[in-house]
Amino acid sequence: MTVSPLAPAFFPALPVIDGVHFASVAAGVRYAGRQDVMLAALDAGTAIAGVFTTSATRSANVLDCQAKMGGAASGPAAIIVNSGNSNAFTGKYGDGSVAAICAGVAQVMGVDPQRVFTSSTGVIGEPLPHERITAKLDELTAGLTAGAIEGAARAIMTTDTFPKGATATVEIDGKPVKIAGIAKGSGMIAPDMATMLVYVFTDAKIAQSDLQALVSRLNNRTFNCITVDSDTSTSDTLLMAATGASGVDVTGSDAFADALHGVMLDLAHQVVRDGEGATKFVEIQVDSAANDADARRVAMAIANSPLVKTAIAGEDPNWGRIVMAVGKSGAKADRDLLNIRFGDILVAEEGWRSPSYTEEAGAAYMKNAELLIKVGMGLGAGTATVWTCDLTHRYIQINADYRS
Amino acid sequence: MTVSPLAPAFFPALPVIDGVHFASVAAGVRYAGRQDVMLAALDAGTAIAGVFTTSATRSANVLDCQAKMGGAASGPAAIIVNSGNSNAFTGKYGDGSVAAICAGVAQVMGVDPQRVFTSSTGVIGEPLPHERITAKLDELTAGLTAGAIEGAARAIMTTDTFPKGATATVEIDGKPVKIAGIAKGSGMIAPDMATMLVYVFTDAKIAQSDLQALVSRLNNRTFNCITVDSDTSTSDTLLMAATGASGVDVTGSDAFADALHGVMLDLAHQVVRDGEGATKFVEIQVDSAANDADARRVAMAIANSPLVKTAIAGEDPNWGRIVMAVGKSGAKADRDLLNIRFGDILVAEEGWRSPSYTEEAGAAYMKNAELLIKVGMGLGAGTATVWTCDLTHRYIQINADYRS
Repeated sequence: MTVSPLAPAFFPALPVIDGVHFASVAAGVRYAGRQDVMLAALDAGTAIAGVFTTSATRSANVLDCQAKMGGAASGPAAIIVNSGNSNAFTGKYGDGSVAAICAGVAQVMGVDPQRVFTSSTGVIGEPLPHERITAKLDELTAGLTAGAIEGAARAIMTTDTFPKGATATVEIDGKPVKIAGIAKGSGMIAPDMATMLVYVFTDAKIAQSDLQALVSRLNNRTFNCITVDSDTSTSDTLLMAATGASGVDVTGSDAFADALHGVMLDLAHQVVRDGEGATKFVEIQVDSAANDADARRVAMAIANSPLVKTAIAGEDPNWGRIVMAVGKSGAKADRDLLNIRFGDILVAEEGWRSPSYTEEAGAAYMKNAELLIKVGMGLGAGTATVWTCDLTHRYIQINADYRS
Repeated sequence: MTVSPLAPAFFPALPVIDGVHFASVAAGVRYAGRQDVMLAALDAGTAIAGVFTTSATRSANVLDCQAKMGGAASGPAAIIVNSGNSNAFTGKYGDGSVAAICAGVAQVMGVDPQRVFTSSTGVIGEPLPHERITAKLDELTAGLTAGAIEGAARAIMTTDTFPKGATATVEIDGKPVKIAGIAKGSGMIAPDMATMLVYVFTDAKIAQSDLQALVSRLNNRTFNCITVDSDTSTSDTLLMAATGASGVDVTGSDAFADALHGVMLDLAHQVVRDGEGATKFVEIQVDSAANDADARRVAMAIANSPLVKTAIAGEDPNWGRIVMAVGKSGAKADRDLLNIRFGDILVAEEGWRSPSYTEEAGAAYMKNAELLIKVGMGLGAGTATVWTCDLTHRYIQINADYRS
């Protein structure tokens, strides 16, 4: 598979997070000849928070993780993830697969099953051959090492064209606190093979409830602000583990929150950059909306519009389609107060095309691989920023022909 | 342009509606060498009802039509429509274009300007050269004839690959009442060139308020139940004119309502059949939802999902994507009660794939040009039916490359 033209140049060097060990293995869940299961072992005392898909048909794994959130952080913990099969819409059998994997990990690693968290990504509706995973638990446990996070990032890939990692180190009270995260996903765009999964690790010390509140808040400014094609996976999962090994309490620390925000935003952008068929990375900024919710409605209507996305793919500065998307968003809008910019180019204002705008300037701007679309509503103080990619022939190819 | 493979074999023979005369002309609004303006002259006493786009950035024409709805039906009336330019997002200039056209028609035809209704469809954001239209008003008026409705259907086309017409005659109190309708649109999918416009004429006698209530109700079961790509035009307009020339009062008549429903549904289906790039016509039926609103949410989530639509284009029976769409719809859903059928083939039930389902049967079914997807929610009495088409390479081609 060709790597996305929007991919970063290389996988970043991720630091070792004290208290976390990784292993990955080829279990043959669906793929042959590649690693498809990763295990992260977390030392006793690690706080674990998570955010999950809101889908009404979410997978057995997601339901199980959600039920376990907020539990005591006393003993060791584990996260185990397979690619190739999502274990979604697999009925009662799917619940059994999760239970079998959790029981297996608990036994081999000496962990409370309530502290074992699973994710599965891949085809929907096929029973998960979980015995292929449990058969590899001894091998996985024996292979656990502190520095093996890149292998974990590769094992969870499905239609991804590159592994995704991000890191930050922040100094608090004179001591370094490290954050390392990995993700997989080509957007929310292919729930049968391209669910978004995110795992972030830190040696910071923080209570589970504080970590959960922080992750939920930052999620709304990062992963909840990206869209590839508006389709929502049955399995989207973000798990964050704080081992506390640095000894630095980050409760209420703005510096830590900023660093974590940076890591999560970096991973979110990488998911968009690996959007199926993407050739353009697009930031959409909406300001002066009646309120933040309206700004988000407008930004998402633009980001999800097939007409806007195909125009971008064709490098066509078709700003009329942005007007259309503003109009259909449901947000309060006044034609004569609206303005639209491509980067710094003023395109439309006062209810129609700006006198200073030229089609040549717009067309030249659209040749860029990274685009900024700014919409001013002229109504209030509401703002939102979201990120998306274009809609290309390659998207149709990937998704019309996937299973056949 | 190649005609859609889903097009009807021929344009239907539409009956003359007493009290209506049509003309069309080549005004060169944007297109050269084809008719692009149509005029319908309506006898005194004609009741006119309408439904319009809900877009917050709707066109000057739509705003003007909406302001005129519900006025007295005493004098004669006119509907004038141009293709090639939508007069949307043209600021105060656009309001002036509508006023100029209405004033011109009023003067030439001796009609109250409050009884002149306009529509424009085509590029957004370019000033409408309305003087090209007003220059042709004498020619249009001179050419008015009772039988020229097919020419009108052709004059309003933009990216349409075939003209759209439908008719019904219903006997009420032993007398025939005739309905004839025309439409344009390749779905709601290309607001810069493919707005949906619908004009329906009848010789029935009915008060404006009763006609408006009837049309609004039937619109919710026809044009509001189709989607090509979820994008909403700035100009969508349906106007219905009842001349009363038959002398038959249809107030409260179920037979008339049924006949009108049939005409509107036929036209709505033709719009989907001309959806840009469409190769499949898809009916989605949802039943046993918690309520009708939830059923519609589920049906529209399936109909608008790029993943479902690309799978259909690829003739891939990828029912996991339907599960995904149900899950993201926001409707109440229970995995274990859900069932999914392709036509009569039971695909999924009790939380996973049906034991009787085979991939071969699903794949064979998807080869059909007309598909039925049925979803049972197992929760209540809510139902909905919507229609859509697939998402193909041709859609990307048309919309990525349109203006360039």
